[in-house]
Amino acid sequence: MPFIDWDSVPSREIMPGFHGQMIHTDRMTLSRWRIEAGAALPQHAHPHEQITTVLDGTFEMTVAGETRTFGPGMAVVIPGNTPHAGRAITECRVLDVFQPARDDYR
Amino acid sequence: MPFIDWDSVPSREIMPGFHGQMIHTDRMTLSRWRIEAGAALPQHAHPHEQITTVLDGTFEMTVAGETRTFGPGMAVVIPGNTPHAGRAITECRVLDVFQPARDDYR
Repeated sequence: MPFIDWDSVPSREIMPGFHGQMIHTDRMTLSRWRIEAGAALPQHAHPHEQITTVLDGTFEMTVAGETRTFGPGMAVVIPGNTPHAGRAITECRVLDVFQPARDDYR
Repeated sequence: MPFIDWDSVPSREIMPGFHGQMIHTDRMTLSRWRIEAGAALPQHAHPHEQITTVLDGTFEMTVAGETRTFGPGMAVVIPGNTPHAGRAITECRVLDVFQPARDDYR
Protein backbone atom coordinates (compact mmCIF):
# COMPACT_ATOMS: atom_id res chain seq x y z
CA MET A 1 0.00 0.00 0.00
CA PRO A 2 -0.83 2.56 -1.26
CA PHE A 3 0.42 1.45 -4.73
CA ILE A 4 -0.43 -2.15 -5.56
CA ASP A 5 0.81 -3.84 -8.72
CA TRP A 6 -1.89 -6.23 -9.93
CA ASP A 7 0.86 -8.59 -11.10
CA SER A 8 1.85 -9.03 -7.43
CA VAL A 9 -1.67 -10.10 -6.42
CA PRO A 10 -2.18 -13.87 -6.65
CA SER A 11 -5.05 -15.15 -8.78
CA ARG A 12 -7.28 -17.86 -7.41
CA GLU A 13 -10.03 -19.80 -9.16
CA ILE A 14 -12.76 -18.97 -6.62
CA MET A 15 -15.40 -20.82 -8.61
CA PRO A 16 -15.02 -22.84 -11.82
CA GLY A 17 -13.95 -20.40 -14.53
CA PHE A 18 -13.81 -17.38 -12.18
CA HIS A 19 -10.16 -16.37 -11.65
CA GLY A 20 -10.03 -13.57 -9.07
CA GLN A 21 -7.41 -11.26 -7.63
CA MET A 22 -8.40 -9.55 -4.36
CA ILE A 23 -7.23 -6.33 -2.76
CA HIS A 24 -8.64 -5.93 0.74
CA THR A 25 -8.61 -2.48 2.33
CA ASP A 26 -9.93 -1.36 5.71
CA ARG A 27 -13.42 -0.86 4.35
CA MET A 28 -13.69 -2.51 0.93
CA THR A 29 -12.55 -5.36 -1.27
CA LEU A 30 -11.60 -4.66 -4.88
CA SER A 31 -11.53 -7.79 -7.01
CA ARG A 32 -10.35 -8.16 -10.57
CA TRP A 33 -11.66 -11.20 -12.40
CA ARG A 34 -10.83 -13.06 -15.56
CA ILE A 35 -13.89 -15.13 -16.32
CA GLU A 36 -13.92 -17.92 -18.86
CA ALA A 37 -16.61 -17.85 -21.55
CA GLY A 38 -19.65 -19.77 -20.36
CA ALA A 39 -18.68 -19.78 -16.68
CA ALA A 40 -21.75 -19.33 -14.49
CA LEU A 41 -22.28 -17.91 -11.01
CA PRO A 42 -25.31 -19.48 -9.35
CA GLN A 43 -27.80 -17.23 -7.60
CA HIS A 44 -26.56 -16.15 -4.20
CA ALA A 45 -26.66 -13.18 -1.83
CA HIS A 46 -24.30 -11.62 0.70
CA PRO A 47 -24.61 -8.76 3.15
CA HIS A 48 -21.94 -6.75 1.28
CA GLU A 49 -22.97 -4.05 -1.15
CA GLN A 50 -21.39 -4.75 -4.56
CA ILE A 51 -20.70 -2.67 -7.67
CA THR A 52 -19.74 -4.58 -10.82
CA THR A 53 -18.02 -3.10 -13.87
CA VAL A 54 -17.08 -5.06 -16.99
CA LEU A 55 -13.67 -3.99 -18.31
CA ASP A 56 -14.00 -6.04 -21.48
CA GLY A 57 -16.19 -8.79 -22.80
CA THR A 58 -19.90 -9.43 -22.37
CA PHE A 59 -21.47 -10.59 -19.12
CA GLU A 60 -25.05 -11.40 -18.18
CA MET A 61 -26.41 -10.70 -14.71
CA THR A 62 -29.71 -11.26 -13.00
CA VAL A 63 -30.24 -8.96 -10.03
CA ALA A 64 -33.44 -9.08 -8.00
CA GLY A 65 -35.15 -10.85 -10.91
CA GLU A 66 -34.04 -8.46 -13.69
CA THR A 67 -31.67 -9.88 -16.33
CA ARG A 68 -29.37 -7.80 -18.53
CA THR A 69 -26.48 -8.53 -20.87
CA PHE A 70 -23.83 -5.81 -20.84
CA GLY A 71 -20.27 -4.77 -21.45
CA PRO A 72 -18.10 -1.87 -20.33
CA GLY A 73 -20.86 0.72 -20.82
CA MET A 74 -22.74 -0.26 -17.69
CA ALA A 75 -22.29 -0.42 -13.94
CA VAL A 76 -24.34 -2.80 -11.81
CA VAL A 77 -25.24 -1.91 -8.23
CA ILE A 78 -26.22 -4.82 -5.99
CA PRO A 79 -27.46 -3.76 -2.56
CA GLY A 80 -26.61 -5.97 0.41
CA ASN A 81 -28.58 -9.23 0.74
CA THR A 82 -29.92 -8.97 -2.82
CA PRO A 83 -30.05 -12.25 -4.81
CA HIS A 84 -27.93 -12.15 -7.96
CA ALA A 85 -26.51 -14.55 -10.55
CA GLY A 86 -24.19 -14.16 -13.52
CA ARG A 87 -22.85 -15.78 -16.66
CA ALA A 88 -19.97 -14.91 -18.97
CA ILE A 89 -21.27 -14.69 -22.54
CA THR A 90 -17.68 -14.20 -23.76
CA GLU A 91 -14.41 -14.28 -21.86
CA CYS A 92 -14.57 -11.23 -19.60
CA ARG A 93 -12.48 -9.04 -17.41
CA VAL A 94 -14.57 -7.67 -14.55
CA LEU A 95 -13.90 -5.34 -11.64
CA ASP A 96 -16.02 -5.73 -8.49
CA VAL A 97 -16.00 -3.65 -5.36
CA PHE A 98 -17.56 -4.89 -2.14
CA GLN A 99 -18.38 -3.00 1.03
CA PRO A 100 -17.52 -4.00 3.71
CA ALA A 101 -14.43 -6.06 2.84
CA ARG A 102 -15.07 -9.69 1.85
CA ASP A 103 -13.40 -11.45 4.76
CA ASP A 104 -14.51 -14.75 3.20
CA TYR A 105 -12.18 -14.01 0.24
CA ARG A 106 -9.09 -13.37 2.39
CA MET B 1 -30.68 0.66 -10.32
CA PRO B 2 -29.42 -2.03 -10.41
CA PHE B 3 -28.29 -1.61 -14.05
CA ILE B 4 -26.91 1.86 -14.81
CA ASP B 5 -25.91 2.89 -18.32
CA TRP B 6 -22.89 5.20 -18.06
CA ASP B 7 -24.28 7.16 -21.03
CA SER B 8 -27.22 8.17 -18.82
CA VAL B 9 -24.95 9.59 -16.10
CA PRO B 10 -24.18 13.29 -16.61
CA SER B 11 -20.55 14.33 -16.79
CA ARG B 12 -19.42 17.38 -14.83
CA GLU B 13 -16.08 19.13 -14.89
CA ILE B 14 -15.45 18.90 -11.14
CA MET B 15 -12.04 20.54 -11.43
CA PRO B 16 -10.31 21.95 -14.53
CA GLY B 17 -9.68 19.01 -16.87
CA PHE B 18 -11.38 16.46 -14.60
CA HIS B 19 -14.66 15.34 -16.20
CA GLY B 20 -16.47 13.02 -13.78
CA GLN B 21 -19.57 10.85 -13.82
CA MET B 22 -20.83 9.78 -10.39
CA ILE B 23 -22.90 6.83 -9.26
CA HIS B 24 -23.88 7.11 -5.61
CA THR B 25 -25.06 4.00 -3.79
CA ASP B 26 -26.08 3.54 -0.17
CA ARG B 27 -22.51 3.02 0.93
CA MET B 28 -20.15 4.07 -1.87
CA THR B 29 -19.59 6.44 -4.76
CA LEU B 30 -18.23 5.07 -8.03
CA SER B 31 -16.83 7.78 -10.28
CA ARG B 32 -15.64 7.47 -13.85
CA TRP B 33 -13.32 10.22 -15.02
CA ARG B 34 -12.00 11.48 -18.30
CA ILE B 35 -8.98 13.56 -17.41
CA GLU B 36 -7.26 15.86 -19.86
CA ALA B 37 -3.52 15.47 -20.36
CA GLY B 38 -1.69 17.73 -17.95
CA ALA B 39 -4.65 18.33 -15.63
CA ALA B 40 -3.54 18.43 -12.01
CA LEU B 41 -5.28 17.66 -8.73
CA PRO B 42 -3.75 19.67 -5.87
CA GLN B 43 -2.94 17.89 -2.64
CA HIS B 44 -6.03 17.35 -0.53
CA ALA B 45 -7.52 14.84 1.89
CA HIS B 46 -11.01 13.60 2.74
CA PRO B 47 -12.39 11.23 5.34
CA HIS B 48 -13.52 8.78 2.61
CA GLU B 49 -11.39 5.77 1.78
CA GLN B 50 -10.58 5.78 -1.96
CA ILE B 51 -9.40 3.17 -4.44
CA THR B 52 -8.17 4.45 -7.81
CA THR B 53 -7.82 2.37 -10.98
CA VAL B 54 -6.59 3.71 -14.32
CA LEU B 55 -8.60 2.23 -17.21
CA ASP B 56 -6.32 3.72 -19.84
CA GLY B 57 -3.61 6.33 -20.04
CA THR B 58 -0.88 7.25 -17.59
CA PHE B 59 -1.49 9.03 -14.31
CA GLU B 60 0.85 10.19 -11.57
CA MET B 61 -0.17 10.18 -7.93
CA THR B 62 1.47 11.21 -4.71
CA VAL B 63 -0.01 9.50 -1.67
CA ALA B 64 1.36 10.15 1.80
CA GLY B 65 4.57 11.48 0.27
CA GLU B 66 5.20 8.59 -2.17
CA THR B 67 4.96 9.39 -5.91
CA ARG B 68 4.33 6.84 -8.66
CA THR B 69 3.45 6.99 -12.34
CA PHE B 70 1.16 4.18 -13.43
CA GLY B 71 -1.40 2.84 -15.86
CA PRO B 72 -3.98 0.05 -15.78
CA GLY B 73 -1.61 -2.42 -14.07
CA MET B 74 -1.91 -0.79 -10.67
CA ALA B 75 -4.51 -0.04 -8.02
CA VAL B 76 -4.01 2.79 -5.54
CA VAL B 77 -5.47 2.57 -2.04
CA ILE B 78 -5.87 5.88 -0.21
CA PRO B 79 -6.97 5.50 3.42
CA GLY B 80 -9.31 8.13 4.85
CA ASN B 81 -7.75 11.49 5.73
CA THR B 82 -4.56 10.72 3.77
CA PRO B 83 -3.08 13.59 1.74
CA HIS B 84 -2.90 12.84 -1.98
CA ALA B 85 -2.36 14.67 -5.26
CA GLY B 86 -2.45 13.65 -8.92
CA ARG B 87 -1.57 14.65 -12.45
CA ALA B 88 -2.54 13.23 -15.84
CA ILE B 89 0.62 12.47 -17.83
CA THR B 90 -1.55 11.58 -20.85
CA GLU B 91 -5.31 11.80 -21.32
CA CYS B 92 -6.69 9.18 -18.92
CA ARG B 93 -9.81 7.30 -18.08
CA VAL B 94 -9.91 6.55 -14.36
CA LEU B 95 -12.33 4.72 -12.08
CA ASP B 96 -12.48 5.76 -8.41
CA VAL B 97 -14.49 4.25 -5.62
CA PHE B 98 -15.10 6.11 -2.37
CA GLN B 99 -16.44 4.83 0.94
CA PRO B 100 -18.67 6.23 2.35
CA ALA B 101 -20.50 7.92 -0.54
CA ARG B 102 -19.20 11.37 -1.54
CA ASP B 103 -22.17 13.51 -0.54
CA ASP B 104 -20.15 16.54 -1.66
CA TYR B 105 -20.31 15.19 -5.25
CA ARG B 106 -24.10 14.76 -5.31
